[in-house]
Amino acid sequence: MIEKLLAASRSNHSLLCVGLDPDPNLMPPIDIADFNRQIIEATSDLVCAYKPNMAFYEALGRKGLEALEKTVSLVPAHIPTIGDAKRGDIGNTDRMYARALFDNLGFDAVTVNPYLGSDSLEPFLEYSSKGVFVLCRTSNTGSRDFQSLECSNGQGGHRPLYLMVAQKALEWNRKGNVGLVVGAPHPEELRQVRTTCPDLPLLIPGIGAQGGDLEATVQHGVDANGEKAIIVSSRQIIYALQGSDYARAARDAALLLRDQINQFLSRRGGP
Amino acid sequence: MIEKLLAASRSNHSLLCVGLDPDPNLMPPIDIADFNRQIIEATSDLVCAYKPNMAFYEALGRKGLEALEKTVSLVPAHIPTIGDAKRGDIGNTDRMYARALFDNLGFDAVTVNPYLGSDSLEPFLEYSSKGVFVLCRTSNTGSRDFQSLECSNGQGGHRPLYLMVAQKALEWNRKGNVGLVVGAPHPEELRQVRTTCPDLPLLIPGIGAQGGDLEATVQHGVDANGEKAIIVSSRQIIYALQGSDYARAARDAALLLRDQINQFLSRRGGP
Repeated sequence: MIEKLLAASRSNHSLLCVGLDPDPNLMPPIDIADFNRQIIEATSDLVCAYKPNMAFYEALGRKGLEALEKTVSLVPAHIPTIGDAKRGDIGNTDRMYARALFDNLGFDAVTVNPYLGSDSLEPFLEYSSKGVFVLCRTSNTGSRDFQSLECSNGQGGHRPLYLMVAQKALEWNRKGNVGLVVGAPHPEELRQVRTTCPDLPLLIPGIGAQGGDLEATVQHGVDANGEKAIIVSSRQIIYALQGSDYARAARDAALLLRDQINQFLSRRGGP
Repeated sequence: MIEKLLAASRSNHSLLCVGLDPDPNLMPPIDIADFNRQIIEATSDLVCAYKPNMAFYEALGRKGLEALEKTVSLVPAHIPTIGDAKRGDIGNTDRMYARALFDNLGFDAVTVNPYLGSDSLEPFLEYSSKGVFVLCRTSNTGSRDFQSLECSNGQGGHRPLYLMVAQKALEWNRKGNVGLVVGAPHPEELRQVRTTCPDLPLLIPGIGAQGGDLEATVQHGVDANGEKAIIVSSRQIIYALQGSDYARAARDAALLLRDQINQFLSRRGGP
């Protein structure tokens, strides 16, 4: 999955990932798959990935699941799809989730929750050609409740839980298919994670609506080559305009954001 | 939800919760909702709750979701249903999951993952008539990776992460709708959680196939009244026999387990 991500990112000169989160209260009164098709057609030369969040489809029942299936099939084959599912269960159950997300829905990558530990992630990690983004430091304010707790490392030292997760991610990365989710509203934590995991792709939600600073996100999120940061924007793009011209507005918003990211990237220097 | 749980538990003299996890590799080659209907009809006077795990239905796509909808509707109205979903996302997304699980599927309770912290659970906790079981110490071996890490409490002391979660659960319980998930394979941790949260209902998977000791589970899991422990068995019951007589075999297995639990309960003494 990482090769596909890098190829899409390079050919579109983009670290931008558009979140496809259909909310009937915000979107025009049309078919969801049709709405997503228009958003995808308007932006597919500007992004490195698309990220549908499962919750928005599940809230619509079987009709939502059907729209999700269609949506994944509408994404051009060279652009990776990330199923934002945040799943995490015991092994024999996660095998079912992996089947649903990778085999049936056909996502190139998913997000997973690390709370249940290593064995719970194995069924996902076994898919060597797929990506597994592990929640590390999430973008919401409540993320500090547990993720920032200082934990003993068993050798007299301590570090916050999210860095314990980041450290473990290096072990889980035997097949080169692991990434981490780190929210943009926490730039210092993002820097720490990037320092701990110089080579892992980082999926970074939380710019825009959630208040993350874009320059700091770019600066601390990318790897030494200025790559492997996947900067997510959802509402800011797909609901840029609540009117009939929403697809063009989405394109304008995506173009602006992609170029802002690239500007910060070029200021940062590097290769 | 807690009143419904206690009422079902008392009228059926049961702390047993049957997990409805349809696995095409283990079940007879019949319609899933029909399989579940037979299991439910054979056991509904022996249980305090039913717990379908979402993963097993999601692995079957839209057909699975349809079977899940039917299954929930087949459970007698006085028996609570627990949707084992282990969801956890940021607030505006969890509102969608809550809608899917509580409003659309109609579960009486769900399981959620605490890794994202307090604000991520709010959309579930707002449903005062529903139950919210928070993962605390899960039954799998990898659960120790993070859940057992010793965390600083900010006042010079420390305690393992799962007890931090248990402590928080007391704060989250403003509407009396919070419970915890604690795996049977960890009896000492179960005891600790019960001591920290004397009044919360505990959902306890991991007996049988996962090796949890039943006597210790009963002893440490129940509250002072010998109630509020929901002891889960899935495969041991619903796949008790791989033959045409599976429903009767499921009833026999459920009856045996319920009575074993009650035996340990009476040995324990109490009111």
